[in-house]
Amino acid sequence: MKKAKVAVLGATGSVGQRFIELLENHEFFEVTHLGASEKSSGRKYSEVMNSRWKVSADIPGYAKNMEIVNCSPEFTPGVDLVFSGLDSDVAGEIEMKYAQAGVMVISNAKNYRMSPDVPILSAEVNPEHLDVIQFQKTPGKIITNSNCTIMGVTISLKPLMDHFGLDSAVIVSMQAISGAGYPGVPTMDILGNVIPFISGEEDKVETEPQKCLGKVSGDKIESADFKISAHCNRVPVLDGHTVNVSVKLKKKATESEIRKAWEDFSGEPQRLKLPLAPEKVIQYREERDRPQPRIDLNAGKGMTTTIGRLRPDPIFDYKYTVLSHNTVRGAAGAAVLNAELIYKKGILEVK
Amino acid sequence: MKKAKVAVLGATGSVGQRFIELLENHEFFEVTHLGASEKSSGRKYSEVMNSRWKVSADIPGYAKNMEIVNCSPEFTPGVDLVFSGLDSDVAGEIEMKYAQAGVMVISNAKNYRMSPDVPILSAEVNPEHLDVIQFQKTPGKIITNSNCTIMGVTISLKPLMDHFGLDSAVIVSMQAISGAGYPGVPTMDILGNVIPFISGEEDKVETEPQKCLGKVSGDKIESADFKISAHCNRVPVLDGHTVNVSVKLKKKATESEIRKAWEDFSGEPQRLKLPLAPEKVIQYREERDRPQPRIDLNAGKGMTTTIGRLRPDPIFDYKYTVLSHNTVRGAAGAAVLNAELIYKKGILEVK
Amino acid sequence: MKKAKVAVLGATGSVGQRFIELLENHEFFEVTHLGASEKSSGRKYSEVMNSRWKVSADIPGYAKNMEIVNCSPEFTPGVDLVFSGLDSDVAGEIEMKYAQAGVMVISNAKNYRMSPDVPILSAEVNPEHLDVIQFQKTPGKIITNSNCTIMGVTISLKPLMDHFGLDSAVIVSMQAISGAGYPGVPTMDILGNVIPFISGEEDKVETEPQKCLGKVSGDKIESADFKISAHCNRVPVLDGHTVNVSVKLKKKATESEIRKAWEDFSGEPQRLKLPLAPEKVIQYREERDRPQPRIDLNAGKGMTTTIGRLRPDPIFDYKYTVLSHNTVRGAAGAAVLNAELIYKKGILEVK
Amino acid sequence: MKKAKVAVLGATGSVGQRFIELLENHEFFEVTHLGASEKSSGRKYSEVMNSRWKVSADIPGYAKNMEIVNCSPEFTPGVDLVFSGLDSDVAGEIEMKYAQAGVMVISNAKNYRMSPDVPILSAEVNPEHLDVIQFQKTPGKIITNSNCTIMGVTISLKPLMDHFGLDSAVIVSMQAISGAGYPGVPTMDILGNVIPFISGEEDKVETEPQKCLGKVSGDKIESADFKISAHCNRVPVLDGHTVNVSVKLKKKATESEIRKAWEDFSGEPQRLKLPLAPEKVIQYREERDRPQPRIDLNAGKGMTTTIGRLRPDPIFDYKYTVLSHNTVRGAAGAAVLNAELIYKKGILEVK
Repeated sequence: MKKAKVAVLGATGSVGQRFIELLENHEFFEVTHLGASEKSSGRKYSEVMNSRWKVSADIPGYAKNMEIVNCSPEFTPGVDLVFSGLDSDVAGEIEMKYAQAGVMVISNAKNYRMSPDVPILSAEVNPEHLDVIQFQKTPGKIITNSNCTIMGVTISLKPLMDHFGLDSAVIVSMQAISGAGYPGVPTMDILGNVIPFISGEEDKVETEPQKCLGKVSGDKIESADFKISAHCNRVPVLDGHTVNVSVKLKKKATESEIRKAWEDFSGEPQRLKLPLAPEKVIQYREERDRPQPRIDLNAGKGMTTTIGRLRPDPIFDYKYTVLSHNTVRGAAGAAVLNAELIYKKGILEVK
Repeated sequence: MKKAKVAVLGATGSVGQRFIELLENHEFFEVTHLGASEKSSGRKYSEVMNSRWKVSADIPGYAKNMEIVNCSPEFTPGVDLVFSGLDSDVAGEIEMKYAQAGVMVISNAKNYRMSPDVPILSAEVNPEHLDVIQFQKTPGKIITNSNCTIMGVTISLKPLMDHFGLDSAVIVSMQAISGAGYPGVPTMDILGNVIPFISGEEDKVETEPQKCLGKVSGDKIESADFKISAHCNRVPVLDGHTVNVSVKLKKKATESEIRKAWEDFSGEPQRLKLPLAPEKVIQYREERDRPQPRIDLNAGKGMTTTIGRLRPDPIFDYKYTVLSHNTVRGAAGAAVLNAELIYKKGILEVK
Repeated sequence: MKKAKVAVLGATGSVGQRFIELLENHEFFEVTHLGASEKSSGRKYSEVMNSRWKVSADIPGYAKNMEIVNCSPEFTPGVDLVFSGLDSDVAGEIEMKYAQAGVMVISNAKNYRMSPDVPILSAEVNPEHLDVIQFQKTPGKIITNSNCTIMGVTISLKPLMDHFGLDSAVIVSMQAISGAGYPGVPTMDILGNVIPFISGEEDKVETEPQKCLGKVSGDKIESADFKISAHCNRVPVLDGHTVNVSVKLKKKATESEIRKAWEDFSGEPQRLKLPLAPEKVIQYREERDRPQPRIDLNAGKGMTTTIGRLRPDPIFDYKYTVLSHNTVRGAAGAAVLNAELIYKKGILEVK
Repeated sequence: MKKAKVAVLGATGSVGQRFIELLENHEFFEVTHLGASEKSSGRKYSEVMNSRWKVSADIPGYAKNMEIVNCSPEFTPGVDLVFSGLDSDVAGEIEMKYAQAGVMVISNAKNYRMSPDVPILSAEVNPEHLDVIQFQKTPGKIITNSNCTIMGVTISLKPLMDHFGLDSAVIVSMQAISGAGYPGVPTMDILGNVIPFISGEEDKVETEPQKCLGKVSGDKIESADFKISAHCNRVPVLDGHTVNVSVKLKKKATESEIRKAWEDFSGEPQRLKLPLAPEKVIQYREERDRPQPRIDLNAGKGMTTTIGRLRPDPIFDYKYTVLSHNTVRGAAGAAVLNAELIYKKGILEVK
């Protein structure tokens, strides 16, 4: 199969850097353009990124000498798909332009997530949501992934919903600072501290999971019907969102039934052996003090969701803790996995 | 009024150090003995504590040259009261010996907290619980303070219970490492990390508040009837436990009614103008990102409980965040305030 | 004596906040104006600072309702002196305007530090440098304080120079993030990390101490003649610069002579009993693992310099470690102490 | 070639864990025994290590079910070589027993480092030091690696010594907490703090490099003749020691000559293509703010030494910063590389 030509939009940002890292030597995709804001365009990527490349010691070789271009279809001719790591204040307009130009848009921004014909695609959780993209009005289609905080949470909830039904959940997050991008959180605000507030986050956490776990109904996705209450906190952790979950189910379930539902959970990415698909979607840890961001962050190269501490809850039915890598599984990795899925299923047309 | 003679037991530990700091030049109390384990006894406090004094730059002058003694009544003759910062593995036996010897025991340990005739005294919340100590069988009486995590939480719940009744609460803590004592948490375990587990803590958080907020019934304290579900996490913060609370009330309440209940909350320590009583028991912060441990830790010299982010909860009625200083308000400070209360009310007999 | 009327310029920044804190209820100074950039002017200080006030829980009452004005003499009528916490990119022009308007300028910026008729004033170290300000051409005079990193170092070197002469010194700093202002260092750059570079810092560290320790010669200050080699590093510490010093002296000195020179060191601020003068200019710690920023930061309310670990050096003569509070002693506190000195000595004319 | 049978001594400690990780599927070595203290012996490794395994998410499969034995030759029959990650308080006696029993000892402990016939072997720096082990009196031989702090420093100094000669150096370290083992540094001591003292460390840093860079003279190693002055500091970094170096050379050198000497530096491990040999012994970074522990830690899988910021020094000739991974290159990785060297060169006899 021919590789698809892709551009990374927002290539200088935190998510853009992860895209560039994950797309090095990719089986399905060839990065032909790196897009960023006008002040960087025309300059070599390595020159612009001097001391701004943060995700590893070195910029991947293929990207070093690429010239940055503007984020607009006329500057990225020939691309089949764009990975958008753009900030939400510019993502709306730019992504729409690409869709209108017939380019597939894989977006990490929130702008179109709640549109009824745009999936919040989580490749193992709701691949059937791709059925609605045909109803989008533009020749190119927009596919989003969820907010980083709920990524691991929805993966943990999906098997519970399928087997036992969901009534309600309390979700309390302790979120890594990389979730705020770069420069993001000033050190003076978070070193040795906790900030019990993240702007706009609790709204997303209380609404996106229901859509992500919803059903296709004709030309749109209908949100699942269960309630969420969220507290979102920032903690001095570099990568990895840790989330405490209390959940009430519709049917009775034993601890071992829940453990089995998680351990058996697998999806299309695993069946199709997609390059970025983790062998285990969910890793349950027996140790009483896990998961922990520093230790479990890179399970399945950052694509596995780690769960631990399943135990009865005096008010809800069960409580547990879930961890996922917020900039890999929760952002760029999820987006690349989504792109791999549509490529392998032939939904992406490669010119 | 004559000063009471007191000993600090566990004087070399974290809580013991706070006791020594808070008792410097105290109006009511004169520290006559410092007790610690046998390997320290007979040595000067400053000599034993070289590089182990952690709560400030210098050991208070009065304590420097005191000779450490064993923690047993025969080694602390003449004391009216002991402040016990002993670990729970030795506190049970030693505290009982003192009570049998006719000495008042103000304890920070968990050993006797759940005994029906021992108050978990929080001076503003339940001073009437002192009525049961007369039913203790020993000539000296034991008075405990609560676990550090629930100290601020129970202070926040007390006005809610009085005005609106309590149905249930989810309590999620992000706890400072000083709560684990010294040496406590190894840096390798917590730097840039979160540990979603603290041994034994969730049990205490799910049971102590009900007793603390309970009623005296004859010779014992009956726990209040509401449910708590707890998640306890350790975070890389030095001092100050931050707690997310979701609460369901028995009666409807508006946000402004709740705010007023908190702002008006005051107790016997304030009326009696006890030395360590904070002017404001509760400080509500208007800023959307408060309370934060680093900024709000020392409100009221570490004795004020800071609350913020009151907002409606989609599952419960309201949610908010509460912060208190875990080794001051949550441990040594609470204990000293309890001692001040019994001294001022004449419950403590001074020889 | 009549209080001087003062303005704080750069009132919303990190150093500005410290000025506002230190000037609360000051014996000598009354803050009549708070100056900041145009986008803040006309608004109430507390409104602008919502969530930006970082140095303590609450803005001092006197400043809360003050209206912010532009940083220019016509907007701050009647002031005798300005405290400038302005960034160096704007400080040069604004401070000069004030000097031309006849206002005394106490500056924390680097712009005029190396001008021969402008003292880098360190009140205990070189009060005689005030003799040169008469030669400044403007009716108002400019007085600077040193870079935060060398403040404690020059205090430690002054008694050594006076008693034994200075030949050369290696100065290696581990600097707190507050030295970079706010928002300053992104958390992603420094959490669990060390950055062995601070822009422009090593140049200042290798040249300012010689001027600070220099002599008045007619109408200018001549730098002292000794060499410095500096390495400057950023570490994940909130406040407090820790500096390792290796020093070669001109005359032989024993450890006890050096210790005595430090312990005896006292200056005009102590003789004049200036409000912000620490009782001890230098505190030497006997413990083998001190000074440490967290423990020794607030010695003398942040105005004392703490030294420890004096020992022979195999290449130089001696080595030791020195710590000072970079935003108090190293910035706002030093500036206020300088202002107190010129007020008390009658150098500041109060209208 | 037949694999050598090896035991890991001190298998439950920090260095021991790294040994177990690095020896998974090793080409030359087969781990047949895991040795630890008596209280662990007889138990399965995975059982003992529950929640104590710190270096990654999972214990390597081969080690999980191995039964821990005592650290004594009679309990590890058939081993050709032992990797000792033992603490120095027990290493002396145990390692000697193994040497007397004819087993090759690759030690990370300090006990025998300064014995004239024991090399402080750094495989790229001084492979010729192996010539002296024949003069050891025991049938088995002891080979040590250097202290973790000087490992990267000696690698940076070796090409300078060879090309330009060494006169003297100031070495200031900012050391990661993993260097103190586990539990090691209490969080209360180092979070948001710097400790300017590490027990015994400065002595090692001022003497081991001279031996490591010395010459074989008959039956012993003679230390090189240059002076070092050291300051050692602990910083809140997990892994990776950052060291500021000021160095005086015997001959003049330009920056580009020094850079070339570093870039060309390569040794026997590279020529022999040893499994753990990094392709680049030294990586020089052009960025002005590098090396940094978090970013450069894993260069060459933790075996490459990263240098940056070479610049003239006003007192010495040059200054620069060097970083190496203290528990990989500075401990277990160096030891395994040493063992690979003697295996490949046929110095290790495999039974």
